[in-house]
Amino acid sequence: MKITLIGAGRVATHLAKVLQLQHQIVQIFSRDLQRAQTLASLVSAQAIDDVRQLDPQTDLVIIAVSDQAISNVIELIAPYLLDNLIVHTSGSTSLSVLQNTHHRAGVFYPLQTFSFDRDVNWLETPVFVEAVEPQDLTSLTELANSLSHRVYQYNSTQRQTLHLAAVFACNFSNYCYDMAKQIVDAEQVDFSLLHPLILETANKATANDPKDMQTGPAMRGDRNILNMHQRLLGDSNRSDLQNIYTLMSEAILKRHQ
Amino acid sequence: MKITLIGAGRVATHLAKVLQLQHQIVQIFSRDLQRAQTLASLVSAQAIDDVRQLDPQTDLVIIAVSDQAISNVIELIAPYLLDNLIVHTSGSTSLSVLQNTHHRAGVFYPLQTFSFDRDVNWLETPVFVEAVEPQDLTSLTELANSLSHRVYQYNSTQRQTLHLAAVFACNFSNYCYDMAKQIVDAEQVDFSLLHPLILETANKATANDPKDMQTGPAMRGDRNILNMHQRLLGDSNRSDLQNIYTLMSEAILKRHQ
Repeated sequence: MKITLIGAGRVATHLAKVLQLQHQIVQIFSRDLQRAQTLASLVSAQAIDDVRQLDPQTDLVIIAVSDQAISNVIELIAPYLLDNLIVHTSGSTSLSVLQNTHHRAGVFYPLQTFSFDRDVNWLETPVFVEAVEPQDLTSLTELANSLSHRVYQYNSTQRQTLHLAAVFACNFSNYCYDMAKQIVDAEQVDFSLLHPLILETANKATANDPKDMQTGPAMRGDRNILNMHQRLLGDSNRSDLQNIYTLMSEAILKRHQ
Repeated sequence: MKITLIGAGRVATHLAKVLQLQHQIVQIFSRDLQRAQTLASLVSAQAIDDVRQLDPQTDLVIIAVSDQAISNVIELIAPYLLDNLIVHTSGSTSLSVLQNTHHRAGVFYPLQTFSFDRDVNWLETPVFVEAVEPQDLTSLTELANSLSHRVYQYNSTQRQTLHLAAVFACNFSNYCYDMAKQIVDAEQVDFSLLHPLILETANKATANDPKDMQTGPAMRGDRNILNMHQRLLGDSNRSDLQNIYTLMSEAILKRHQ
């Protein structure tokens, strides 16, 4: 398959790297030509920063930009790619955002957290595909199967639910780790002491129902410890952490009362 | 070493199982004799439910009960164990809670999350020891070294900081997983689709600074997605999840603005 990537950020980079193993990345478009060039040189593609340079001889155009930018991008590129399959990679954006402008619209959503300096285990990463036209759904499914063992045809509503859940499971849990690091850093205690606990908590929650794996003072209803932690956070002038501590603890108390 | 355990819950069970490999568990005390018997039979110890049966021929007494119960327990058992080393296993309880009643007081705190049906990787679990008398600190350190590679002599304040951070890193992150499961369950979407994301997020945060690993709509400042998620949670009458979503997102926005 000949593939064009719109965007040169984290998702575009990881997709380009894995797709070039079995497909041809023809062009990388970014408004920042230098970023396009960095990625293009990795995958032997052409870097472009002008939509008029888009090559219509491509089988698939993947828009991997921020969710807010998708509707602008499709309006910008559609006139140059009249009959090409164009997909976005967003969990929260409906297919209709592309479909309103372009007839061969689709979605190719990998449910994963992407960082520049970490490799992705693509085989285990669930990929969700959607398309207006049945033959496009077939080719997106084939493409997804070429990189992952876990491919699903989900509609925009199901994908939205997953993405909302992913914000809790990934973004908020990561912020919990970040807050823990802020707390130990302030007392010059080594954050790596918490690493085994973080990994075991994640392993437990994926091997069992996380509700059954809940531990800690709120789950036990231990008001003495809850009050003491509140005092500690108050004494260190961290009302931001105090507010989150209160809300999370009350929610856990209620769930396990 | 001859060891007596006060308590038969998750921490007592995991400690008894690992300590019996190199030491002798002489007695398990619990007010619930049946629970004491269940654990005692696992580690060839005597089960008791009456403090008058406590054997003073023991080298170490480990109080592994809920934090609130520690002060009652020490008052109850100290008259029968006048010259024995007695420790608690709590992250948030000061050494002084034992020291007020008993002269050979100490702490043996393993920083881990314990479930009945999961084995613990003791070698990688950090253990924090503290004691009033120097020779007791030495023997607690030796005992800790016999099960873990990561043993630290920490005072009560340092231990308290770690325990507070652990509530964020473990209890709150687990509740994030639980909330994610509630969201997908409501739409009959399979929670296991989120497993690779949960594990990768934990792995990233332990290989790097979690602040640098933050992703998601709040980190990107994407107000459209934040508002849409708020609407979705409102539509499903989950004001509890909505409140946590708002507070966590605002905190992440502020941290990454």
